[in-house]
Amino acid sequence: MPFRFAVRVYIEDTDIGGIVYYVNYLKFMERARTEFLRAHAVEQQLLQQQGYLFVVKSLSCDYKHSAKLDDQLEITVTIDKIKAASVVFVQSVLHRQKVLCSAVVEVVCVSTATMRPIRFPQQIKQIFANSIDAD
Amino acid sequence: MPFRFAVRVYIEDTDIGGIVYYVNYLKFMERARTEFLRAHAVEQQLLQQQGYLFVVKSLSCDYKHSAKLDDQLEITVTIDKIKAASVVFVQSVLHRQKVLCSAVVEVVCVSTATMRPIRFPQQIKQIFANSIDAD
Amino acid sequence: MPFRFAVRVYIEDTDIGGIVYYVNYLKFMERARTEFLRAHAVEQQLLQQQGYLFVVKSLSCDYKHSAKLDDQLEITVTIDKIKAASVVFVQSVLHRQKVLCSAVVEVVCVSTATMRPIRFPQQIKQIFANSIDAD
Amino acid sequence: MPFRFAVRVYIEDTDIGGIVYYVNYLKFMERARTEFLRAHAVEQQLLQQQGYLFVVKSLSCDYKHSAKLDDQLEITVTIDKIKAASVVFVQSVLHRQKVLCSAVVEVVCVSTATMRPIRFPQQIKQIFANSIDAD
Repeated sequence: MPFRFAVRVYIEDTDIGGIVYYVNYLKFMERARTEFLRAHAVEQQLLQQQGYLFVVKSLSCDYKHSAKLDDQLEITVTIDKIKAASVVFVQSVLHRQKVLCSAVVEVVCVSTATMRPIRFPQQIKQIFANSIDAD
Repeated sequence: MPFRFAVRVYIEDTDIGGIVYYVNYLKFMERARTEFLRAHAVEQQLLQQQGYLFVVKSLSCDYKHSAKLDDQLEITVTIDKIKAASVVFVQSVLHRQKVLCSAVVEVVCVSTATMRPIRFPQQIKQIFANSIDAD
Repeated sequence: MPFRFAVRVYIEDTDIGGIVYYVNYLKFMERARTEFLRAHAVEQQLLQQQGYLFVVKSLSCDYKHSAKLDDQLEITVTIDKIKAASVVFVQSVLHRQKVLCSAVVEVVCVSTATMRPIRFPQQIKQIFANSIDAD
Repeated sequence: MPFRFAVRVYIEDTDIGGIVYYVNYLKFMERARTEFLRAHAVEQQLLQQQGYLFVVKSLSCDYKHSAKLDDQLEITVTIDKIKAASVVFVQSVLHRQKVLCSAVVEVVCVSTATMRPIRFPQQIKQIFANSIDAD
């Protein structure tokens, strides 16, 4: 079972088409990744104070259906792959079990000092590894 | 007791200053107003299908302290005044009981057809009135 | 030569990392697609009044370098492919000739009435075709 | 004559009402304040490297009319008052000479090190003073 996080659609998320502005699903997905880590006792603020910053290296997203104002969405978070210096998330946005869009997001860890890629902290790596095993 | 709604701070809410971008508190406050109505069984989407749109007529906001990444904020919603064609909300953003900023937001009801001000639906007016009485 | 559009980075575009929030590059790219059409005398507002809405079907984006506050960016727009019911854009964000990120964005045309895919208006199709020929 | 800066309305700026999301006018106004300073050879990025951060202390905004997709707006910037530790801007958003909304924005200067208010750099103070004299 992938990690799931609920997101409500507000007016700020919509555009003139009357639906969620497509770029905003990517924000919803990031919220879910953040909550996935928080569920494992990892806070972004603390990570940054320790000198680590998570940066999106690449993403791809397929849009199938649209979310509307007031919709209660579910965002899933699955760790797909752990590479030497990056981790690949697979995520979906669902409304009442229907997949609205799905994405692959590759995240690297960079040093806040140098802004260059560094290894994920051991604790984070373990969380990712456990998550893959659990699936 | 005013209505309260919890909002978590994500990276999307921050700016280069490392704190919440000041404009975004106004989005948080709108989320809280929306949830205040939802708590009274009113959905924005439905209102719009019935031809009603709530539009902010004026707002003022005082900023005292900043919210940071990962902060769990509380947004309050109080109905301050009901006028013939508008309602005045007083709202605050709090972090651990400390008021970060507070705002006065006047909202009018307009017709989606004409985009001109009309009276609030009776059901909504009653919700506002009950809320004032309850305080 | 691809179409180019200049975008300035403001505080609203940055995040706690001190750089442009990665999701916002996708907004910059949409601005450039809009200006590409405007340069060919096509206004979005008019298109929508005529019943056409352009919707992003899929996108992928690779991030190489970050933009900073005050940076003057250049966004390119190239038509890569015209399919029966969609068009594929290839776009880059540059700062002083350096590519910060590049994306492939597939856009479909939907009817505002049915929200289902329809053919692009002939005028738009011609603009896309001419643009490919010109490259 | 107040300083004027042009802003184009894109899809990202709109909401389900088909008009510009009211919060976004405040972003447009900040862009104009930034450009007002840039017109006087002041770059935000540089200011921050020198340890200065401009922070909005309070704002009020009156909304009269709405902007629509594709609208070319003009944002004005007038210095209304220079206080010991803050400056008060009066700004309007116009479309074809018509005022859509107007705001009063008080900005303080804080130290990036302490995040506490400090005096504006002398150069900035002079720019503000000259601007008032010029009106």
